[in-house]
Amino acid sequence: MKIIENKIKFCIKNLKSYEPVLFKGKYKLDANENSYDLPKLIKRKILKKILNIPVNRYPDPEARSLKKILSKKLKVKKDMIFIGNGSDEIIFYLAQSFLEKDDVVIIPVPTFEMYKIISKINAAQVIEIPLTKDFDIDDKNIIKYAKITKAKFIFIAYPNNPTGNCFSKDKILNIIKNTDAIVIIDEAYFEFSEKTFIKYLKKFKNLVILRTFSKAYSIAALRVGYMIANKEIVKILNKIKLPYNANSISQVFAKEVLLNEKYLKDNIKKIISEKEKLYEKIRKKFFVLKSDSNFLFLKVADIKKAKKIFQKNKISVRIFNSGYAKDFIRITIGKKEENRIILNALNKL
Amino acid sequence: MKIIENKIKFCIKNLKSYEPVLFKGKYKLDANENSYDLPKLIKRKILKKILNIPVNRYPDPEARSLKKILSKKLKVKKDMIFIGNGSDEIIFYLAQSFLEKDDVVIIPVPTFEMYKIISKINAAQVIEIPLTKDFDIDDKNIIKYAKITKAKFIFIAYPNNPTGNCFSKDKILNIIKNTDAIVIIDEAYFEFSEKTFIKYLKKFKNLVILRTFSKAYSIAALRVGYMIANKEIVKILNKIKLPYNANSISQVFAKEVLLNEKYLKDNIKKIISEKEKLYEKIRKKFFVLKSDSNFLFLKVADIKKAKKIFQKNKISVRIFNSGYAKDFIRITIGKKEENRIILNALNKL
Repeated sequence: MKIIENKIKFCIKNLKSYEPVLFKGKYKLDANENSYDLPKLIKRKILKKILNIPVNRYPDPEARSLKKILSKKLKVKKDMIFIGNGSDEIIFYLAQSFLEKDDVVIIPVPTFEMYKIISKINAAQVIEIPLTKDFDIDDKNIIKYAKITKAKFIFIAYPNNPTGNCFSKDKILNIIKNTDAIVIIDEAYFEFSEKTFIKYLKKFKNLVILRTFSKAYSIAALRVGYMIANKEIVKILNKIKLPYNANSISQVFAKEVLLNEKYLKDNIKKIISEKEKLYEKIRKKFFVLKSDSNFLFLKVADIKKAKKIFQKNKISVRIFNSGYAKDFIRITIGKKEENRIILNALNKL
Repeated sequence: MKIIENKIKFCIKNLKSYEPVLFKGKYKLDANENSYDLPKLIKRKILKKILNIPVNRYPDPEARSLKKILSKKLKVKKDMIFIGNGSDEIIFYLAQSFLEKDDVVIIPVPTFEMYKIISKINAAQVIEIPLTKDFDIDDKNIIKYAKITKAKFIFIAYPNNPTGNCFSKDKILNIIKNTDAIVIIDEAYFEFSEKTFIKYLKKFKNLVILRTFSKAYSIAALRVGYMIANKEIVKILNKIKLPYNANSISQVFAKEVLLNEKYLKDNIKKIISEKEKLYEKIRKKFFVLKSDSNFLFLKVADIKKAKKIFQKNKISVRIFNSGYAKDFIRITIGKKEENRIILNALNKL
């Protein structure tokens, strides 16, 4: 296979890929999806629309009607919105547009692994800055290293994944103000935190916000994410994006969940209330972080034993054997019964 | 906007993007889609399945059940198949996996523009080798330049787009045998040509074949393409692909059109028969190429006048004002009535 091996891009040769699933259980609490499927009412509405879509035609490359609805809802101009096949595709396009070989990307850790993987695929150097002891962002070190290295990107998940908390707003603003880098704030769990940097977009041209339909909006299957940023950045991404990256059916699903949002609010409320209950119970026995998202991050004394118990009980959760989150577990908030099963399993630890 | 402009990747700054649509008419014959929508029968079957899919869950990242069906149909192993969000996404991944800055990509021209655009986004140098006078591939020059430049990729559309013909099989084999480059054969229109290089995959490890569901299979809206190649290449692409690139609903559509292929065959036959008729009529007045695809490529004396007439008649076709296909028009074969309208328009030229 020399003929192939010799040709692989250098930065990819030793890359470790993203492994989305650890093990498969009956109770899927490992991917921070909304535990509730889309209400049948909305689903039927959507399927009726799909029946009348000529699927032999390519999608609207500009996803205009989806952008129109988003623009109205978010009170930002349409030319500040970019639609992706999941927000990870948008991260890919950002990397592709800006990162030259050996450019520096700064990432607080632990965080969502795709920032690092996508940066490395694009031959960038990744500098990881550990969170402070109280799981906040280390603004001073990030600013320092961004200056020294002339970093192109700083990724900030807000709330952070896997820790689940929102970092201090002031520290993030401090980073945005005191760096020349493009600061990419990933608000994938915004609908659970209700905290956003959207109002700072006007003031800071180096700010990029990412959102997704894969979490609160219950349509992870459809792969729709979006970016809100100044129009210069949107223009660049439009230039390099695959012409038909957002498929027609996903565009319909995204539009309809936005237009029928009120039916989703109940599920979001239920998840938040279940989270609070679970948090109170878990904290009696474990170190667990206060969460602004739809998942909890807790430390266990014996991670191997925890893995065994979860596997035995057919529960899929995210288990960190190594790295900055070593000995922690990330549990997606499930339905009532799933959360009870989680507690039972934790009680065996 | 200096803060942003200064950061754009050098190879992207002056890039011209792909403009999928020239102008919008009532008769859409510009994108080589299947002019027939998916039969309602199949659509209803699919929508019934979708109703029972938990759309709150992420897609199967490996698209296993789709690969299983494809594997059986194509008689290739599952680990030789890769699914993409359109075959253009697969081209992107190939470029991303293999192309270092200034690596050379060889492209016969005129051909599908995305090969060049995606190569350039990945900082590669593109060498364009014009077709011979009879619109065949210039194997000798391609082999020569591939050797001199140590080209990484050679793209070959088979049938070629926009010319519509299949290049000589022997010339293509000559290229595959006599070069060290990865030869990417794009068989997007295979279901119309019924000519394929699939049987050569075993012998030539540097061969990659691309296919799509966007043409004959009538689901351009869903964005599903696939690659068949030796498993080493598939492994590399699996390493760098976005984990959930192929969404769940598109996977269902692709599976169902494969399982209900017999209902699609009629439309394909109709298109081929309409094409032959249209060809015979057009050739009386114009230079038009014999086509192995679902479109025709013809030369007009006055391209500006042609553009005006098509616009006036609300017909969207692909018009080439410049470049290697200058003064040519590419017309997708439509339904019977659309083809009559096309002929009327051409008769005014």
